[in-house]
Amino acid sequence: MNSQTATKEDPKPTVAITMGDPRGVGPEVTVKSLAGESLRQACSPLVLGDGEVLRRTIQALRLGLKVVEVPEGILPQLPPGILPVLSLTRLSPGPNPVAMPPEESSRASFAYVEKAARMALAGQVEAVVTGPVSKEAIARSGIPFQGHTEFFAQLAGVREFVMMLAGERLRVALVTTHLALNEVSRSLGEEKIRSVIDITARGLRDYYGLPRPRIAVAAFNPHAGEGGLFGEEEKIISRAVVRARDAGWEVSGPWPADSLFHRAVQGEYDAVVCMYHDQGLIPLKLLHFDSAVNVTLGLPFIRTSVDHGVAFDIAGQGVASPRSMEEAIKMAAHMAQRKREKSRG
Amino acid sequence: MNSQTATKEDPKPTVAITMGDPRGVGPEVTVKSLAGESLRQACSPLVLGDGEVLRRTIQALRLGLKVVEVPEGILPQLPPGILPVLSLTRLSPGPNPVAMPPEESSRASFAYVEKAARMALAGQVEAVVTGPVSKEAIARSGIPFQGHTEFFAQLAGVREFVMMLAGERLRVALVTTHLALNEVSRSLGEEKIRSVIDITARGLRDYYGLPRPRIAVAAFNPHAGEGGLFGEEEKIISRAVVRARDAGWEVSGPWPADSLFHRAVQGEYDAVVCMYHDQGLIPLKLLHFDSAVNVTLGLPFIRTSVDHGVAFDIAGQGVASPRSMEEAIKMAAHMAQRKREKSRG
Repeated sequence: MNSQTATKEDPKPTVAITMGDPRGVGPEVTVKSLAGESLRQACSPLVLGDGEVLRRTIQALRLGLKVVEVPEGILPQLPPGILPVLSLTRLSPGPNPVAMPPEESSRASFAYVEKAARMALAGQVEAVVTGPVSKEAIARSGIPFQGHTEFFAQLAGVREFVMMLAGERLRVALVTTHLALNEVSRSLGEEKIRSVIDITARGLRDYYGLPRPRIAVAAFNPHAGEGGLFGEEEKIISRAVVRARDAGWEVSGPWPADSLFHRAVQGEYDAVVCMYHDQGLIPLKLLHFDSAVNVTLGLPFIRTSVDHGVAFDIAGQGVASPRSMEEAIKMAAHMAQRKREKSRG
Repeated sequence: MNSQTATKEDPKPTVAITMGDPRGVGPEVTVKSLAGESLRQACSPLVLGDGEVLRRTIQALRLGLKVVEVPEGILPQLPPGILPVLSLTRLSPGPNPVAMPPEESSRASFAYVEKAARMALAGQVEAVVTGPVSKEAIARSGIPFQGHTEFFAQLAGVREFVMMLAGERLRVALVTTHLALNEVSRSLGEEKIRSVIDITARGLRDYYGLPRPRIAVAAFNPHAGEGGLFGEEEKIISRAVVRARDAGWEVSGPWPADSLFHRAVQGEYDAVVCMYHDQGLIPLKLLHFDSAVNVTLGLPFIRTSVDHGVAFDIAGQGVASPRSMEEAIKMAAHMAQRKREKSRG
């Protein structure tokens, strides 16, 4: 069966989009993203949020978009111009929709996330895109919440997952994320690195149409430690690379990080596995300042995210850029499409 | 006095170029660089090396260039096509000039470096550009040698110097260089960081025509430690920034490193002071893979360097790229020109 032909006849991938904290820029970037035609051609979106907040946001921005609240369990393929919303809260926004009691707002933002996860786990949507929430505000409202990713993993019963940042020219997967740089070395275990390589490789194979993804692993020390002259972490990384290679993956390293990203961008690799946050984020943001997408790999469903926060300081002003949300939705749709094609063989 | 007008009448800046280890690619990239007209218009070069090795290298490469050995103390302004060489050794190269006894070759490469330093310190040349040597080979030949920069600093009686990597779009100055990443934190002293900011700012002011250089200082931890949540190094960096600002420099930070280089490239800063090797080298090499120049700031003379090694594996094949050497000579010439203009006021 020719999957190219089949694709054209298929319904578009269903993507659940959580609108984020009602007080932040989430609702704004959500409606801005979905007002245009291009994303509507790539996917069939369902916004999880508050119907009234979204309506007011559209009004304030004078967008040609009409909210239609759909009942649970229904995923209508609606034309551009109509925004399907599963309204999960009944907030009472004023004329300025971001003026909202913090606690109510935080709890609402969590409800959208929880619903999205349950729908994805039940196979009701093919991908989840998350708008920005405030972790601190949710936690203050009494809900134990460490972040989207941790919550999804817990709900899915998954212990290992990977944060990958993906742009047009470069993809980086992180072994450690928000950790003091001085703590990174002691948390670089062979098994952990192996697992990140494995999850990244599976992700690229399953969602990016790369049957044999080429993965480079960055060294931790400058010049990859110059043969043990400075630092020993490369030995651990080496063993993890060997194990991943034995498992059949096309992986190499540890490579000196300074020249590695140039090589990846030249097309030598499909992704770079990085040992620490800035190692991956410095080159990524240099190339893709506002167009990179945050992808969580290792969950039983596709999940992407905007790479910015709630930005309470500019919310309600109409000035927030929807670029990151657009890219996140687009990538989720593409990933879902690739997954369909792959499962058809 | 109009320095623009004066410049045109001035003799070109004199730049001493050490040809590097005769067994490496140094002689090849030196003659390739100086065979064209463009560099000859920017400076008056004097190659410190071995006349016969250079002659044979030119022959092997079939370049239209003629070596003229000049006596010490003479810096003739010769036309392109003539390569002025201060021949400091009498090596006996075979038809393949890179076939040379290692010890003789290593000692020779050191002699060129030493002479260049003495000439620069005596004011006989305005800048020094160093070709690649093998530190290990020089040390094995019985000469205590830790590297060009350390040697120059020692000879000049200078204790503090800074390695800056400069490309067209980005300049990075390093607080630490070849050090295990795990050791970096404990060597980030307030005084050291302050000194690097100071030396970098002076360098940009004196050699780059920037009367008020704008300097950004990178944080050590991801998200600049998120207010002490992960890591404490930002406190030390902060204090160093305050002191440098009190001294009159336009300096800010510590900034989260992931978005900082994008901002620098957009023109917000003239240089970024980085805490560790890969923090600076990752973005630099991504933008300027083979065109960045290694500049040593803090010495009493201008010094740039190729950013590659001896590359014994490809020496004598005629395939070495002169790009890095060309950029190093060009930058040394520009720096010397700016210094002249500045000293004229």
